[in-house]
Amino acid sequence: MTKLLAGIMAVAVNLLASADADKSPTTADVMASLAPSDWRQPDPANLLYMQTRSGEIIIELAPAFAPKHIANIRTMVKERYFDGLTVTRSQDNYVAQWGNPDSENPNAIKNLGSAKTSLKAEIFKPLKGNEIAPIESRDAYADYVGFSHGFPVGYDDKRYWMLHCYGIVGVSRNTDLDSGDGSSLYAVTGHAPRHLDKNLTLVGRVIWGMEHLSSLPRGTGNLGFYETAEEQEPIISVRLGSEIKEAERTRLKVMRTDTEAFQRWVQSRRYRSHEFFHDPTGRIGIGNIIPPVEIQ
Amino acid sequence: MTKLLAGIMAVAVNLLASADADKSPTTADVMASLAPSDWRQPDPANLLYMQTRSGEIIIELAPAFAPKHIANIRTMVKERYFDGLTVTRSQDNYVAQWGNPDSENPNAIKNLGSAKTSLKAEIFKPLKGNEIAPIESRDAYADYVGFSHGFPVGYDDKRYWMLHCYGIVGVSRNTDLDSGDGSSLYAVTGHAPRHLDKNLTLVGRVIWGMEHLSSLPRGTGNLGFYETAEEQEPIISVRLGSEIKEAERTRLKVMRTDTEAFQRWVQSRRYRSHEFFHDPTGRIGIGNIIPPVEIQ
Repeated sequence: MTKLLAGIMAVAVNLLASADADKSPTTADVMASLAPSDWRQPDPANLLYMQTRSGEIIIELAPAFAPKHIANIRTMVKERYFDGLTVTRSQDNYVAQWGNPDSENPNAIKNLGSAKTSLKAEIFKPLKGNEIAPIESRDAYADYVGFSHGFPVGYDDKRYWMLHCYGIVGVSRNTDLDSGDGSSLYAVTGHAPRHLDKNLTLVGRVIWGMEHLSSLPRGTGNLGFYETAEEQEPIISVRLGSEIKEAERTRLKVMRTDTEAFQRWVQSRRYRSHEFFHDPTGRIGIGNIIPPVEIQ
Repeated sequence: MTKLLAGIMAVAVNLLASADADKSPTTADVMASLAPSDWRQPDPANLLYMQTRSGEIIIELAPAFAPKHIANIRTMVKERYFDGLTVTRSQDNYVAQWGNPDSENPNAIKNLGSAKTSLKAEIFKPLKGNEIAPIESRDAYADYVGFSHGFPVGYDDKRYWMLHCYGIVGVSRNTDLDSGDGSSLYAVTGHAPRHLDKNLTLVGRVIWGMEHLSSLPRGTGNLGFYETAEEQEPIISVRLGSEIKEAERTRLKVMRTDTEAFQRWVQSRRYRSHEFFHDPTGRIGIGNIIPPVEIQ
């Protein structure tokens, strides 16, 4: 099934790639042509609503990639672990990090409650039995790239893994690969630090309000950690979407990545037919493909 | 000469790449091993010192790539064109832009004085007669990548061009390719928007104080433009390094990119031998290679 879908997608991509760039639709054209079925409504149980002073940040969790870490994060959220903690680190062109400030001590500032204090890393998934929509691209780090379950992935002939693209959320850890628990999380705020791929458990992506993390003042300590408590941005609260009444939460739709429409949209980003572009490259990198998100 | 250097460098790169990853030096090892000759002191005539409320931003201009635009920018700086203007745009995961707020009207807010109001785009340079230190990498956008004159470049068999990597500074323009003049400039503050390569004139890189541009609040208007004057970050002053006495200016050194030491440093970034990394990729992307800069 994976191979069949991959084969169909590859043919579609090649057909599109060989089309005259002048006939390529603009991104606006593609967006205007979308049907309701080209969008998906994320499961509220997979959404984290994080409130900060500057605004709301919404993270879509990816249980298909890291089910145990996400179960642990859900437990912490339900027990209000994150409420009142802070963003502890903002390193320019790298990551913003929040939650437990002391990775050596899980219960440093707040007891982890029912949550586990360490988990085995969840990084790789077998290619077999999973569907990947391939993106035709020369990637510097992975043999092949594409999207699976809505998230950017790299893959080889056996397995696939989520990529450290902009806005992707990961689990901080110590030197030990299996030392993370989800009490401290980070989001990529700069050029994709792809050397971290395959080394850390990734759990989702910021799909709304990313600017409230990316524009935080940079910390002046080592690795961008804030040096004083006053500099740290407070996290007012974190709730699962499923904990908030539908009428009271920001409802989002995300462009599906397993559709022909998504491939057309990628194609419009590959060949920029807008008049601003005099040399519409015809090429694209996975880091420059972020599925659109809109208020529903 | 180009081919000879490229050939020698390619051999060196291949030798390094085939070395056992375990024997790869750490970045700290390489940094500690550097000789004074592995660094360069940028020509003060190529440095822009931009003062903002949050701190100093230093840009290194690249006259080897865009001599006419840079001559124009130098003229504007000397005539104090930028002083009192503002950062007009901050678009998340894209660019911060400053200077002339109205690209349709060069003299909109302030007269351009002796500077020219439009210039022919300066994007490509012939490979012949220029030296490029190649970086072994699969790049999504360019056939080959490397560094020339200290800046990241893409190249094919005939020509090369600077790349829209993090911190790179470009000339805003209208739809017409030759409509830029340097009165409005932008710096890349997100994942490298490489689809802009070959479409805009690039003039240098922010080598110090990048955080004062990248952490600005995002504008809420179209394309991240600020909607009110109050939101715009003021530019207190811009001076050429050559206009400031040596004792009074921040003096920087930048790692040279045409040395064997630079290739060793890149290698240490390719194979992360630090104990934190359990899968030290062995691969690298040009967007993740930013030559180190230190206070002298």
